[in-house]
Amino acid sequence: MPSETVTLEGHIIDSLLLPRVLDEIVNSGNSYDIIELTVGQTNEDASIARITVTTETDEDLVSLLDQLRVHGANPETVEDANIAEADLDGALPPDFYSSTNLETDIRINDQWIRVRHPEMDCAIVVEDDTARTIPMGEVRKGMRIVMRGLGIRALPLEKPRAGSRSEFEFMSSDISSEKPKGLMLDKVAAQMRVIKKSGKRIMWVAGPALIHTGTAPDISALIRAGYVNALFAGNGVAAHDIESNMFGTSLGVHLDAGVAAEHGHEHHIRAINECRRHGSFRAAIDAGVFQDGIVYHLVKHGCDYLFGGSVRDDGPMPETVTDMNEVQPRLRELIWGRGGDDLVGYCIIVGTMLHGIATGNCLPASVPLVCVDINQATVTKLMDRGSWQSIGIITDLSLFVRELVERLAPEELQRATN
Amino acid sequence: MPSETVTLEGHIIDSLLLPRVLDEIVNSGNSYDIIELTVGQTNEDASIARITVTTETDEDLVSLLDQLRVHGANPETVEDANIAEADLDGALPPDFYSSTNLETDIRINDQWIRVRHPEMDCAIVVEDDTARTIPMGEVRKGMRIVMRGLGIRALPLEKPRAGSRSEFEFMSSDISSEKPKGLMLDKVAAQMRVIKKSGKRIMWVAGPALIHTGTAPDISALIRAGYVNALFAGNGVAAHDIESNMFGTSLGVHLDAGVAAEHGHEHHIRAINECRRHGSFRAAIDAGVFQDGIVYHLVKHGCDYLFGGSVRDDGPMPETVTDMNEVQPRLRELIWGRGGDDLVGYCIIVGTMLHGIATGNCLPASVPLVCVDINQATVTKLMDRGSWQSIGIITDLSLFVRELVERLAPEELQRATN
Amino acid sequence: MPSETVTLEGHIIDSLLLPRVLDEIVNSGNSYDIIELTVGQTNEDASIARITVTTETDEDLVSLLDQLRVHGANPETVEDANIAEADLDGALPPDFYSSTNLETDIRINDQWIRVRHPEMDCAIVVEDDTARTIPMGEVRKGMRIVMRGLGIRALPLEKPRAGSRSEFEFMSSDISSEKPKGLMLDKVAAQMRVIKKSGKRIMWVAGPALIHTGTAPDISALIRAGYVNALFAGNGVAAHDIESNMFGTSLGVHLDAGVAAEHGHEHHIRAINECRRHGSFRAAIDAGVFQDGIVYHLVKHGCDYLFGGSVRDDGPMPETVTDMNEVQPRLRELIWGRGGDDLVGYCIIVGTMLHGIATGNCLPASVPLVCVDINQATVTKLMDRGSWQSIGIITDLSLFVRELVERLAPEELQRATN
Amino acid sequence: MPSETVTLEGHIIDSLLLPRVLDEIVNSGNSYDIIELTVGQTNEDASIARITVTTETDEDLVSLLDQLRVHGANPETVEDANIAEADLDGALPPDFYSSTNLETDIRINDQWIRVRHPEMDCAIVVEDDTARTIPMGEVRKGMRIVMRGLGIRALPLEKPRAGSRSEFEFMSSDISSEKPKGLMLDKVAAQMRVIKKSGKRIMWVAGPALIHTGTAPDISALIRAGYVNALFAGNGVAAHDIESNMFGTSLGVHLDAGVAAEHGHEHHIRAINECRRHGSFRAAIDAGVFQDGIVYHLVKHGCDYLFGGSVRDDGPMPETVTDMNEVQPRLRELIWGRGGDDLVGYCIIVGTMLHGIATGNCLPASVPLVCVDINQATVTKLMDRGSWQSIGIITDLSLFVRELVERLAPEELQRATN
Repeated sequence: MPSETVTLEGHIIDSLLLPRVLDEIVNSGNSYDIIELTVGQTNEDASIARITVTTETDEDLVSLLDQLRVHGANPETVEDANIAEADLDGALPPDFYSSTNLETDIRINDQWIRVRHPEMDCAIVVEDDTARTIPMGEVRKGMRIVMRGLGIRALPLEKPRAGSRSEFEFMSSDISSEKPKGLMLDKVAAQMRVIKKSGKRIMWVAGPALIHTGTAPDISALIRAGYVNALFAGNGVAAHDIESNMFGTSLGVHLDAGVAAEHGHEHHIRAINECRRHGSFRAAIDAGVFQDGIVYHLVKHGCDYLFGGSVRDDGPMPETVTDMNEVQPRLRELIWGRGGDDLVGYCIIVGTMLHGIATGNCLPASVPLVCVDINQATVTKLMDRGSWQSIGIITDLSLFVRELVERLAPEELQRATN
Repeated sequence: MPSETVTLEGHIIDSLLLPRVLDEIVNSGNSYDIIELTVGQTNEDASIARITVTTETDEDLVSLLDQLRVHGANPETVEDANIAEADLDGALPPDFYSSTNLETDIRINDQWIRVRHPEMDCAIVVEDDTARTIPMGEVRKGMRIVMRGLGIRALPLEKPRAGSRSEFEFMSSDISSEKPKGLMLDKVAAQMRVIKKSGKRIMWVAGPALIHTGTAPDISALIRAGYVNALFAGNGVAAHDIESNMFGTSLGVHLDAGVAAEHGHEHHIRAINECRRHGSFRAAIDAGVFQDGIVYHLVKHGCDYLFGGSVRDDGPMPETVTDMNEVQPRLRELIWGRGGDDLVGYCIIVGTMLHGIATGNCLPASVPLVCVDINQATVTKLMDRGSWQSIGIITDLSLFVRELVERLAPEELQRATN
Repeated sequence: MPSETVTLEGHIIDSLLLPRVLDEIVNSGNSYDIIELTVGQTNEDASIARITVTTETDEDLVSLLDQLRVHGANPETVEDANIAEADLDGALPPDFYSSTNLETDIRINDQWIRVRHPEMDCAIVVEDDTARTIPMGEVRKGMRIVMRGLGIRALPLEKPRAGSRSEFEFMSSDISSEKPKGLMLDKVAAQMRVIKKSGKRIMWVAGPALIHTGTAPDISALIRAGYVNALFAGNGVAAHDIESNMFGTSLGVHLDAGVAAEHGHEHHIRAINECRRHGSFRAAIDAGVFQDGIVYHLVKHGCDYLFGGSVRDDGPMPETVTDMNEVQPRLRELIWGRGGDDLVGYCIIVGTMLHGIATGNCLPASVPLVCVDINQATVTKLMDRGSWQSIGIITDLSLFVRELVERLAPEELQRATN
Repeated sequence: MPSETVTLEGHIIDSLLLPRVLDEIVNSGNSYDIIELTVGQTNEDASIARITVTTETDEDLVSLLDQLRVHGANPETVEDANIAEADLDGALPPDFYSSTNLETDIRINDQWIRVRHPEMDCAIVVEDDTARTIPMGEVRKGMRIVMRGLGIRALPLEKPRAGSRSEFEFMSSDISSEKPKGLMLDKVAAQMRVIKKSGKRIMWVAGPALIHTGTAPDISALIRAGYVNALFAGNGVAAHDIESNMFGTSLGVHLDAGVAAEHGHEHHIRAINECRRHGSFRAAIDAGVFQDGIVYHLVKHGCDYLFGGSVRDDGPMPETVTDMNEVQPRLRELIWGRGGDDLVGYCIIVGTMLHGIATGNCLPASVPLVCVDINQATVTKLMDRGSWQSIGIITDLSLFVRELVERLAPEELQRATN
């Protein structure tokens, strides 16, 4: 029966790597033999485990090794990765290696090469001496694709150790609305300050409830204070933001009085039409169509932004990207920077499942991610998608952002309108 | 076929009273004849409607009249109310009149008498020349109980008219988390200020999430500032509040660090035990068992409070009232004041369905009621129970209370971090 | 001051049309004068109201008339509609009339013409003697667009009267999970039977939870039995449906055992890749890639379907439409039939907010719409978007569909796999 | 510095016992030294670990040992337990040992004695040679109470091993509404069949939504079929169940038509009054007051039941226990049987947080527990309270129970009423 020995190193017991590896083996119907286990005697020491796994078929072994790799258990056998040429445009050879969002090396010509832009559910393409992830839609015939099997190793994120507390540790990750909220706000604010100071970018992913709840002025304050370097959102965020600055309403509700506006439901349509008439946000701003709000501040402060279209959009706004095949490359550019080497340092998702999952799918595991939503199911789902480094906060996004401004940029607070 | 004419007055069209009355008649399978309808020609004028309803049986007519009375449609026939003697302790004669939470008059000896302490789902007992509501459990044999039928009239609350805006109007009542939150906070804060200034009492009804989310210091600030005159809560609020002041934890979670406390789950049990050893909150405070928190401030500032027990309680705390037959009279005392004539002016329910519904059941319709919860179903349910004057706010109670303190008592804000 | 008289007819009091009209007028800061009100004396008779509204400016009057029109209050002044030529491609003249989802007539050359394909938030374009709605993106320079003002009339849906019960009435519309579920299922099943018998099409709009909960076999049973004539869904529904038929998993969870599949998260990617390799669902089916499931049955039974892409898609599947500018016209075709004259007779949305809102936006008000979701906020939101004829059911979509099959097509039930 | 060595045995790595023990030590700020770790080499073998823990103070050590004991890490030092006499009625000596819901032994006179009726958050009282848990309220002066420290050992439940599947294993425990529902139903039905066959009792804990959703006939079917041996619920379940059988309504909503009943809100009050007039459920049944429903079947089939009062109750019903000090002992009797030795074999909580938490608090860890609710937060909370053997199912309780009847007692199905 086919077998292979894998090794696992680090704080593998209390980071749960070893238990997970054993679980995966048994759950997949296979068996293991622990041939070495040296446990860190004290809580400072690392441990090492060597485990021989045995499966019934070669195919099962390949599958199992793929799976253990996610937890950082890499095969001892060192061979070059298997490479195959793509035989079609836009599709992969059937046994392609499907990537994770962890740092990954592949072995070519007896050398381990780091894969550029780790992202899950992609393939890995080898070009000369370099390797990078590639979504299946961008594959072109003849590209050299990494196949499942040996010659691939993943470097798992260890959970930060209790006892060696850093700014980026967080409280126990079970998700509940009944957590100390002031404390969580302090923590997120502190992390943002550290990231900003380090020169890394902070990315926001936002849903339209931001506008309906009257939170746009607070986001604008954060833009002015330099805490919003990139924004990913849907057409509705732009539409309602501009509507609220043209008409004082969001979905027709007067934000300064909370009463349904006269004929309010039309306002977003008229806002979109007006922007379309000008052709771009900047042109509309230059023409004085709107003079405040999130879009206004993004444009004025030169922030990166991307409005990705969806099936429910009205209009859409002139800069909304309507083809999904174009949105995802633009999203990757937002995440990795235009040159591809300026990875965002922090990502915060507020009030959107759709754009949040899209971002979670593209983001490498190493970027701290905070999900804020009033709906527990949304937060749970965002945390469930392989973005296991996420922090989920069940709260009211409007008050959350307001309190964040009070901590990060109190001088920007203007309480006048909301 | 039995019939009766009812009259309805006021802004009966845009307050929806007339449509509702017509709906009730048709939905109950009966029919109507509008014999007079004088409509206020402009939006300032009141209207009047006289409607003859016809049913198949006398019993149906009595039922229908009861039902229309809730909407303020009172029968034109004026007779004394039917009175029967209770034939048993603790139960009512089968055809008793079941009260609403509206101001109600009954007719005795050709006189309309105002019923004291309007509350829904009670009976009305007549004693000499006075009438008051009485829950069935307090009925004693021989008491004179008002029966269904004529001689009863209800005075509906008209919805405040748009156009004649007052402090106690609110935005459209559909419940959603996507409402302008800053605005809602401004409104609630303004209402509380008005009530406090008027000398009326503000009543809070609170669930344990207040403590778990680290909000006790903010409630304490509101107690100090005079915005909490009465508190109704469960045993858990007292237990976790005192736990957090004895041990720094709530349900074993360190409120200043958010990490699970060493052996934390025991803390609330030890807190309860310690209070039981002292016999009362005051005795425990005098002995220095705890020196801060909600219970501490309630006792120190002489506020009214009531901790009502439940089947899930540990302990319970020494002052928790364990018998439900005793809790409800105590709750009515909290609402109406010790002398029975100092009705609370404002009621705010945060984070509790159980104690919230209990309060909603006892409260007269005239008291403005605000329900704050992160769960839409809880808010909807609290608004569904006849407390139709309620305002439901779906938000994070912790941040809501914090923002309320910032508006009402910023000088009390201490504790920088939460 | 500018003024106009509007008339309103039908069951305007208990259908709440009159109260709403008066509310709109007062809320918008304007005033009214009821110059005639003839009320149906009994519950069988219709009423008529004539109301003069007065505003401060002509612009306000145009706005207010637009708004009252939504409730069926049409101006008495009869003039031709104002027409303007589009001055740009893809945008409208600033004062265009923004359509509702009600049947609408416009007046041209002294004739009332019915507008084809009523849909909200569109413009109306006049071509020769016909008029139709047009989304702003499809506008081309020179098109003749209807402007706001006179010459437009909307025909509101009256709420079905209690007392004249039909199959398409429903219980009181407040949304709660605590409704009699068996009864609601009986009602929906009965409505579907009536629609099917009438020869009209039934449209489903579905989210991926259908697949994750193991409900695909039940939907397939309904397809076989003729209760699914058109399906609108996202890429994920196709991906997980085919994954589950290729690998027995959905998002890597074994649907027949509920345990996480070995390397399961890859399965959907491999399923998509395999379909892309074949180029279409039919080609993949012909090649034997999958032999059961929703997509299989849709193709085999010649049902209409549309998979609309989104920013979070992997792949996507070969037939997923990725450009939003193409999805919406395709969705309208699904709704109105290929020839544009075969409007769906019933629409049921299960487990999707995104595609549900998209559908609600395009659907005329006359199509009965049922929204099923386990999340109250989702149901509330779907009902909030102008689709006021909706019925919201808060329940578990999986058990809901199963019980629907038991009522509609018990002979198709095969319990084997789930 | 004080230290002690603890041992841990079994599948301590993949049952996560060892990782948790190490976590607790480090999180509490202490340190460890693994002095022995013999790991089961294959997945069949057990492991053993011996860990020396060191703390700063003796008090810390006692605390830490208490905490590790919950995970089955018991001290090697074997001494008799420390016993102290209660110095007060109704309270415990400050350093009492607070019990867990695990099987527990205490050491007295050099003998390990099994503690009767394991329940969390209680004390342990020693009487002659026996030991049992006791809630603090039942303590009487002079009782011999076990104190914190040595001489106590807990026997943790190991999670069932994957690979050695039994009927009582379940799918991965993360809670989501998007799980295969048919499969979960099959599993719960199979477990209930096994329990019933084994002669053990099945306990239900139910909320009023059961009645509002029209599910009472299905519960009645399960009572008749022998799948409901004990029921714990609130006053509202009895009130609305009897209301629905007297009037056909629940909270005034006609269960056979879903329309609000004429004067419906009174019905529950009249139902309660009628039962109070008869003094007991049996007397009311004998008098013909109601002839069907849950209460009727419980009485007729001699099932155990307990209706525990709450602050929001109307009435209450004659058999509702209003004093919480009486409810909890009655609940323990329901759980352990009248003689105290007939522990329930299965517990299912449907649609109630209050009574569910009460039950979870009293139940030993060994009883399989299923929580069914449409609200994710409720399910999460019920699973969070130390009832870690729970299975949470987010679904519609009405359809869940209906599908359960179809699996367990199809012959009892009568569709007539819902």
